[in-house]
Amino acid sequence: MTDMMEMGQAVLKAQPFSLLLGTELMVFEPGRAELRLTLREEHRQQHGFAHGGVVSYLADNALTYAGGSVLGNVLTQEMKINYTRPAIGEVLIARAEVVSQGKRQAVCRCDVFAVADGQERLCAAAQGTIMPVDTPE
Amino acid sequence: MTDMMEMGQAVLKAQPFSLLLGTELMVFEPGRAELRLTLREEHRQQHGFAHGGVVSYLADNALTYAGGSVLGNVLTQEMKINYTRPAIGEVLIARAEVVSQGKRQAVCRCDVFAVADGQERLCAAAQGTIMPVDTPE
Amino acid sequence: MTDMMEMGQAVLKAQPFSLLLGTELMVFEPGRAELRLTLREEHRQQHGFAHGGVVSYLADNALTYAGGSVLGNVLTQEMKINYTRPAIGEVLIARAEVVSQGKRQAVCRCDVFAVADGQERLCAAAQGTIMPVDTPE
Amino acid sequence: MTDMMEMGQAVLKAQPFSLLLGTELMVFEPGRAELRLTLREEHRQQHGFAHGGVVSYLADNALTYAGGSVLGNVLTQEMKINYTRPAIGEVLIARAEVVSQGKRQAVCRCDVFAVADGQERLCAAAQGTIMPVDTPE
Repeated sequence: MTDMMEMGQAVLKAQPFSLLLGTELMVFEPGRAELRLTLREEHRQQHGFAHGGVVSYLADNALTYAGGSVLGNVLTQEMKINYTRPAIGEVLIARAEVVSQGKRQAVCRCDVFAVADGQERLCAAAQGTIMPVDTPE
Repeated sequence: MTDMMEMGQAVLKAQPFSLLLGTELMVFEPGRAELRLTLREEHRQQHGFAHGGVVSYLADNALTYAGGSVLGNVLTQEMKINYTRPAIGEVLIARAEVVSQGKRQAVCRCDVFAVADGQERLCAAAQGTIMPVDTPE
Repeated sequence: MTDMMEMGQAVLKAQPFSLLLGTELMVFEPGRAELRLTLREEHRQQHGFAHGGVVSYLADNALTYAGGSVLGNVLTQEMKINYTRPAIGEVLIARAEVVSQGKRQAVCRCDVFAVADGQERLCAAAQGTIMPVDTPE
Repeated sequence: MTDMMEMGQAVLKAQPFSLLLGTELMVFEPGRAELRLTLREEHRQQHGFAHGGVVSYLADNALTYAGGSVLGNVLTQEMKINYTRPAIGEVLIARAEVVSQGKRQAVCRCDVFAVADGQERLCAAAQGTIMPVDTPE
């Protein structure tokens, strides 16, 4: 495991909300991040799909990781998400990448896939702005 | 409790994810909805604030309720959220309202406030599109 | 005319694109701005309504003015717009206000109205992020 | 020229606003569209860059074309745009593609490039929802 991946894992473990949901960091390299969530009953809404809030959480977090991969210590400034299909399946995968990087912001995009019977289907598309924070950790 | 409020409560209770987080429906009337979440350790990220995913979940859900208050059975089609301040405090309150209503969509806005020491401070501003679904429940 | 209004007018006059379209600045005060555009044939799309690009231009510009009213020299970092109704009428009015203000950003909202027969009807709702720029002019 | 391209050109010619700006349709095929705009003095803002409203107009229009390429007669329901770099150069190119397509919506993304000295540089990234309209033309 690279130093970068180790640092990414440490950040995720330091997020009680990500531990609660069971998020896993699969990829974390310059310009790119992938998060994965095994769906459980408690992630669902009234129709049995993953709750939109679970999907947007995963997209938001993946966008932040992608931005953080090039900017270091960051915050999500804003994001937008389109839900394209009910999130049905066993696993959610969010893949984010940096589209544009500057000193003051990284603009990132993220696709969220629901995996059912081994097949990935896009369930959301997101775009957001990640900004560096100066505070040391 | 009105029939409308009763129905709204029933939907919330049917969402395992909302039960997991502890969301409460405070207001649900034509054109308007308010959700409330008492913050717990497990809602936080690595800096001790409520995780952005918790804030966006609450905004998303409040937007859906607002849209549903005028359209009936609905889905969130898309939404956008700006984080304006770290979500620090004991409680989050999301207030959403319908800005424009048609047959095919309701455009809604939502303000999310963090309550600390009894004082509300805006921590996020959201806007989204809610669409009716035809499937009966 | 206040100094602030004078400055706002000067900026508008320095924008060839705003001169081309015929935009007028009606209100420019701390936290708030209003732009107005008298619709001409050349602003329309193939159905006879004002082109979405005209509406989004006006929203974008009003958001920037609102942010600039509290931050000084600014740029629009990003924005989101929902079209709520065809922009039919003689005049477009965009009213923007600051929702949240910090050192690094102002989050603003804007409502765009189409005026037909003296009646204003909402045709778009926007939200965006305005950031200060350091470069002197 | 294909029938599809011919139809796309006809729509553009029927938009007085696109004629005013000088927009050209370069690509229009299932799932994809490209628009091009040769920058003139009148497209600029006070700093000499292309006005954000010009950039967002081009992104909006390209998104609509991409959605229309798979849905037929359409309207832009909403869109979001991040400005990533000042739009400096001689030409703007907006490339849009369909990310997800259903009966009721197409979710599309668009990249806008400014071309200076023959080199393309990303100046905006957009994402939006295109919806079919039933009205025959």
